[in-house]
Amino acid sequence: MTIVGGGTADSLVREDGVVGYIDVGPLTLESGYRLPRARLAYETWGRLNADGSNAVLIEHALTGDSHVARGQSRDHAPEVERLAAEAGGWWDGLVGPGAAIDTDKYFVVCANILGGCYGSTGPATQAPPEVDPEQRAWGSRFPRITVRDTVSAEAVLSDALGIDRWRLVIGGSMGGARALEWAVMYPDRVAACGVIAACASASAELLAWGQAQALAIRQDPNFRGGDYYDGEFPEAGLGLARRIAHITYRSAAELHYRFGREAQTNEDVDATHTSQRGRYRVESYLDHQASKLAGRFDANSYLSVNETLMSHDVTRGRGALEEVLAGTTCEWLVAGVDSDRLFFPAESAELVQALPGEQTLHMISSPSGHDGFLIEAPQLGMLLKKTVLKD
Amino acid sequence: MTIVGGGTADSLVREDGVVGYIDVGPLTLESGYRLPRARLAYETWGRLNADGSNAVLIEHALTGDSHVARGQSRDHAPEVERLAAEAGGWWDGLVGPGAAIDTDKYFVVCANILGGCYGSTGPATQAPPEVDPEQRAWGSRFPRITVRDTVSAEAVLSDALGIDRWRLVIGGSMGGARALEWAVMYPDRVAACGVIAACASASAELLAWGQAQALAIRQDPNFRGGDYYDGEFPEAGLGLARRIAHITYRSAAELHYRFGREAQTNEDVDATHTSQRGRYRVESYLDHQASKLAGRFDANSYLSVNETLMSHDVTRGRGALEEVLAGTTCEWLVAGVDSDRLFFPAESAELVQALPGEQTLHMISSPSGHDGFLIEAPQLGMLLKKTVLKD
Repeated sequence: MTIVGGGTADSLVREDGVVGYIDVGPLTLESGYRLPRARLAYETWGRLNADGSNAVLIEHALTGDSHVARGQSRDHAPEVERLAAEAGGWWDGLVGPGAAIDTDKYFVVCANILGGCYGSTGPATQAPPEVDPEQRAWGSRFPRITVRDTVSAEAVLSDALGIDRWRLVIGGSMGGARALEWAVMYPDRVAACGVIAACASASAELLAWGQAQALAIRQDPNFRGGDYYDGEFPEAGLGLARRIAHITYRSAAELHYRFGREAQTNEDVDATHTSQRGRYRVESYLDHQASKLAGRFDANSYLSVNETLMSHDVTRGRGALEEVLAGTTCEWLVAGVDSDRLFFPAESAELVQALPGEQTLHMISSPSGHDGFLIEAPQLGMLLKKTVLKD
Repeated sequence: MTIVGGGTADSLVREDGVVGYIDVGPLTLESGYRLPRARLAYETWGRLNADGSNAVLIEHALTGDSHVARGQSRDHAPEVERLAAEAGGWWDGLVGPGAAIDTDKYFVVCANILGGCYGSTGPATQAPPEVDPEQRAWGSRFPRITVRDTVSAEAVLSDALGIDRWRLVIGGSMGGARALEWAVMYPDRVAACGVIAACASASAELLAWGQAQALAIRQDPNFRGGDYYDGEFPEAGLGLARRIAHITYRSAAELHYRFGREAQTNEDVDATHTSQRGRYRVESYLDHQASKLAGRFDANSYLSVNETLMSHDVTRGRGALEEVLAGTTCEWLVAGVDSDRLFFPAESAELVQALPGEQTLHMISSPSGHDGFLIEAPQLGMLLKKTVLKD
């Protein structure tokens, strides 16, 4: 393990919400592929206490990043870094000073997933010389990353930060999958685990939607097998993948309530030819979601994280679910979202049933579907304070 | 109206399940566009009785055709026609000799939708000389077709067949939308109406999935704006559209039960690189659905029927739903499928609430989702014999 820029574990802790980087490679992946170099981008909030008992690891979802909460930049930081640090985080309602995951009390860490495009090694990263003497981007050569691979990389980060045992590892959606793998792979290092709107293994439903999203990208002529970095970006394909995903992230009832069959303002949905027809409001909304993602995310990284999610199966090579979970020792917070149609509450219930001891299935009430795990952060905060963070 | 090949109404009735054609144009569409020529392909089973009281019109779903039930070819018919007639129909369990819609008792008619690709005028049809002096295929120039347009065309067919009033008009999915429009547009011509796994207007959810499917086709480089008939077929885009649709036609529980996370036989889902990874069984299943459709359906027709479904709104330009339905006079069979996640049972319930008089919401029990309206034909048959076909 090399700390980028050298230094001690202490030097790895930046100001709150400022991105740092650490080399965690070489890593031998679950597939057997040896990733010669691997770097994680991460952020921290607060300070580790003397006995190292207040560290919380937060795992982001599919297209997320390490900026889970608002932070502050270092003195004399460049404007761009200052603005990034001070920007709102994706779980602001849950993480921050005085929040359920109180950054005045806990030392909070969040790392970008391996294969992502927010600073951790991914397909858009320059490949090492042993892979490409010209050190172009990995592109199509980037290996398949499993949930376990990303957790292994985070264990190296934990070592570097001097964290032997996490007070809590928590995440929603694919973040919940990573939290669950932490509890199984490193039972001695996890005191409590929060698996929110997630499941023990990616369902046939997830695999089916995952395939459709991957094809949307691969079939974009700009994708060129994944080696598109010297040309046009496969924006249309990525946008379509996002539209498909976004529908599954919300609920039909919410789409009906917000948009119904209304036409977008000043657009004619009754044109004589379909190619000239204006958009329904729900189409305009999905167009907006598509272009937002295409403006911030790399298509190869999308394929990588999509594949990581599809790989999720805590039982793979380990035995039956109850046997696999029997080795865990942590406290649990398992919560579903009642309107979730991607990670069904029944899947959270199956996980609860299989955990050792008597466990409770908690339910977040939301009209918004899967995204309720983000939107209803205050409810989740109350759940945390009633359960694994009650002391 | 011109009967193709000339003849009388009687001459329009072929042997059971043998395709016939009738010119129903020119048609002025709901959009105001004048379709100079329009032809419907249709099939019939049985014979119209003396008082014309036994005619049943069946409306097919999105990518369906007129072959609702098995038939028999005429003497000395060409082999291809004989085989087509004798092939199984898409609602065989419901329609046939001795079935709930008994072809020994009823005169059954089913027409291919306008814009389709099973003999009715659609985008792949040769355009008339006033549209294209070279009479190439309509392609991108084919106009947008609404549910009401297809029903207007069927009214011309009804006149030609000498059917003043249908004993029953019934359909599932988009077929149910057409049945509903029949009851609203021609209340004097519909004695009973069956709206199965359908709704009063296409929901935001349907619009959202409809957009994704349209984009999947439009973004295929072979699509070329819809004028691809002289080149490669946009098979990949059509296949992706079908995968998306097919997932919404089934239930997550069924996909889980049938496929789980199993790998396709002899395929390795744990390869080092995603591009080399084998398929999960559910992916192979969806690949099969995609290639089956791409082998039998025209991409422009898919866009046309997709748009027709998106256009479905029985209230458009007519007032509130209750007011619109107040003018109907028929008996009703409204049934949902309990596991349907595309046309939700709640939408069937809304329709029932808005109908005049006291109506009942019937429910088809199926683990298979929306496709339950096809799969559970025997249940639907029992419902018909308990309700609108009880005499």
